[in-house]
Amino acid sequence: MDWSLSIDKAIPKPLRVILRGVGQVFFCCNAVTGLIFLIALYVGGVTAGLAATVGVISSTVAAYLLGFSEDDIDAGLYGFNGTLVGPCLFLFLENTPILWLYVVLASILSSVVLAALIRILQPYKIPASTSPFVLTCWMFMVAVYSFDVFSRGPVLPAPGIPADIAAASVVTTEFATLTQDAAVTWYTAVTKGIGEVMFADSVIVGILFLVGIAITSLRGALMALFGAIVGVAVPVLLGADKTLIEMGLYAFNPVLTMMAVGWVFLKPSNGTAILALLAGILTVICQAGLANFLAPIGLPTLTFPFVLVMWMFLFAASKSKYWDNTN
Amino acid sequence: MDWSLSIDKAIPKPLRVILRGVGQVFFCCNAVTGLIFLIALYVGGVTAGLAATVGVISSTVAAYLLGFSEDDIDAGLYGFNGTLVGPCLFLFLENTPILWLYVVLASILSSVVLAALIRILQPYKIPASTSPFVLTCWMFMVAVYSFDVFSRGPVLPAPGIPADIAAASVVTTEFATLTQDAAVTWYTAVTKGIGEVMFADSVIVGILFLVGIAITSLRGALMALFGAIVGVAVPVLLGADKTLIEMGLYAFNPVLTMMAVGWVFLKPSNGTAILALLAGILTVICQAGLANFLAPIGLPTLTFPFVLVMWMFLFAASKSKYWDNTN
Amino acid sequence: MDWSLSIDKAIPKPLRVILRGVGQVFFCCNAVTGLIFLIALYVGGVTAGLAATVGVISSTVAAYLLGFSEDDIDAGLYGFNGTLVGPCLFLFLENTPILWLYVVLASILSSVVLAALIRILQPYKIPASTSPFVLTCWMFMVAVYSFDVFSRGPVLPAPGIPADIAAASVVTTEFATLTQDAAVTWYTAVTKGIGEVMFADSVIVGILFLVGIAITSLRGALMALFGAIVGVAVPVLLGADKTLIEMGLYAFNPVLTMMAVGWVFLKPSNGTAILALLAGILTVICQAGLANFLAPIGLPTLTFPFVLVMWMFLFAASKSKYWDNTN
Repeated sequence: MDWSLSIDKAIPKPLRVILRGVGQVFFCCNAVTGLIFLIALYVGGVTAGLAATVGVISSTVAAYLLGFSEDDIDAGLYGFNGTLVGPCLFLFLENTPILWLYVVLASILSSVVLAALIRILQPYKIPASTSPFVLTCWMFMVAVYSFDVFSRGPVLPAPGIPADIAAASVVTTEFATLTQDAAVTWYTAVTKGIGEVMFADSVIVGILFLVGIAITSLRGALMALFGAIVGVAVPVLLGADKTLIEMGLYAFNPVLTMMAVGWVFLKPSNGTAILALLAGILTVICQAGLANFLAPIGLPTLTFPFVLVMWMFLFAASKSKYWDNTN
Repeated sequence: MDWSLSIDKAIPKPLRVILRGVGQVFFCCNAVTGLIFLIALYVGGVTAGLAATVGVISSTVAAYLLGFSEDDIDAGLYGFNGTLVGPCLFLFLENTPILWLYVVLASILSSVVLAALIRILQPYKIPASTSPFVLTCWMFMVAVYSFDVFSRGPVLPAPGIPADIAAASVVTTEFATLTQDAAVTWYTAVTKGIGEVMFADSVIVGILFLVGIAITSLRGALMALFGAIVGVAVPVLLGADKTLIEMGLYAFNPVLTMMAVGWVFLKPSNGTAILALLAGILTVICQAGLANFLAPIGLPTLTFPFVLVMWMFLFAASKSKYWDNTN
Repeated sequence: MDWSLSIDKAIPKPLRVILRGVGQVFFCCNAVTGLIFLIALYVGGVTAGLAATVGVISSTVAAYLLGFSEDDIDAGLYGFNGTLVGPCLFLFLENTPILWLYVVLASILSSVVLAALIRILQPYKIPASTSPFVLTCWMFMVAVYSFDVFSRGPVLPAPGIPADIAAASVVTTEFATLTQDAAVTWYTAVTKGIGEVMFADSVIVGILFLVGIAITSLRGALMALFGAIVGVAVPVLLGADKTLIEMGLYAFNPVLTMMAVGWVFLKPSNGTAILALLAGILTVICQAGLANFLAPIGLPTLTFPFVLVMWMFLFAASKSKYWDNTN
């Protein structure tokens, strides 16, 4: 919205670039939105907030020092991968003082990987999105098996053959009844789904994120909300693990996919809204597939299901006479 | 052959596009060939035939609705991935009513992935071939561990560490003797090898496929036959598992590789025939390698060994002064 | 150095091309350097030397016969992947007469894969480097589970879930003391680190390699030495497995990364030297990550950590206003 963009422009440049970097996690080049996201992160947990702050600063400063495009840096594009790297490593690895150094190193690498992917995808005019964050964090997380100074935290899934996962799944009946309990369960799962984009298992953080997005774009917020609903409804219909659905862990990828396809990268229309819905449904299947694919090495999918489905739809968009690529 | 192309042109357009889609599984843009393939599929099993029909229609209609290139659709290029998705999911997953919906969804996705890969490979003028089918089916098959409404069928290999596979292999002496039994074993393995391209463990289906290809091109049929022979002889020489060789499971990939390299994508000559032979031999090794690579997550290679080796040879072809890329 | 290039030009062409192929393993287009490398390989072990000789000849001759660029062949670019394929397969697979045939086939494939990757990377002006060797050897090594005529040698890691690796790590105190023992340990680990680029677990081979590089370029040799030091110091600081560090198995990748980033592919300067240091540190983490990623199928990383980090830095270089790509 206009008032927020006026404030955005009034903020001193270094702070604005950092806050925009946080905002870009949900595709919002808007320092006000970024500030709300950052406050939400600290509300979710001081460590997560600090880690995101260290990450966004490290990756942005690294991009400056390495001489990458100043326009891209100003838009916050070298910030959002670092924003995600910080809380990710602090959630999945054991919290030790040396982990801060690891976060700084990973954030710097995420900027190098982003520049590399921008170059690779340049002929196709396709965004790298959060793929640098995912690739960097996967590498830094799977490496710690070999290093004594780091340990895997309890949240990181134990490596194992995917067949064992099937046994763990629980029937998801409480989503299907028309009681007040069902309404609460849905409300929790949907809002947490938005919060989990930045690893926050929290209703209030999810709502703050949604408010932040709405300040930049109502269509964006609507797409995020629909994405979260798809990310609860589809796994419920397919009989996925109840605990994962309730924590919003099937929802944060469709949230990003529907925002990308239905708002950011294709021309907004009813057609692209339907397309976004299709992409959202496929993201749920892609997430289950990737999770099982990564099971033997014990890594989480992070936002890679979103990246894969978004890439497929954006590459395909350029071969379609109906979809307008706005970039 | 000319008479078959005349019939092809006389068939009403929607039916022709669908039948060409089936024909393109073996690179044949010819509705008569496609019809023979489809009949062969129903001969192999009514479910497989129906699944292929649903698949080819879903992926072709999806391509129309999504606005992809009409020339490509008319040539059946948006049909063959769906043709393969249908029987694949019905072979490897448990047959339930909701599986039909899953096949439709996967076939639609295969068209999106094909459009995306056409765009990615466009600067190189390299075909996507069956890679959309493989990527889509892998994702849909490995996802079912997480969903209660789907189950893995008995044919899908149990996930496990690849070392355990070595113990299961059996000496392959009966291929090496000069008895009538050996002749029958070879005949069975070679014909089934052609049938297994569309998941048919059947001699008669393999022969029908070969007849269908011969109607479009004799060189094509010859390459398919040589590919199947390579796909039996090489694993026998290397001492691979007898049961897999007899079912033609080492042969269907070299069949496609030799057709692609020796007939479709490079200018037919004695030189490219030798190149096709080399590519066929390497496909056998690639198949064994990829099968073991996928063992921990319990997925079959499908036609990806063919795709990988074909891509390597076609990319390399453009750097050679001898190989003429006909596209 | 000039005198060595004069000798290089005086050597008859076929021999020069082969020797340059060996030299290109360390980016040295210089037959004198290649000769020293080859002698070093035979010093390390006659089988390794012979396998490298067979490999370099097979891949170079294959490139001639397949009609690839004569300029590239003359520069030895179609030789170094074969040079690595030979000793690699003889180290990791059981030594049998038929393995020689396997080496020839793999070396031929490495030339096809190199031509393909040159084509793929052509729009970006990025080198394929040793990736054809890695991809080919991975495929040929993981395939042998399925073939009775080949067996895995004792050096190849047993496949397993990566969590089991963590238990095996040993505290690395002897690197941290200021005794004479510590100096010997460092000296051994650093020199072996350079030798392990061509699979030689030997101090003298490492020193000979370093001498060979110095004949072509002092900066190159300096980068190789610093890379080996980084590849010992960083894993020691992170608490990695002592045995692996002492054998130089964390060092051979940073050796190549620092040579590539700090000498060969970016304009030599103090800035790129610092960049090379950063790339070297990240290569250590990448190597640990990739090793654990490959654990379930029991494959070694080979030089892929170097390839990945080098690619990231070279792709990123073209987006930076500071880094000059010399190619």
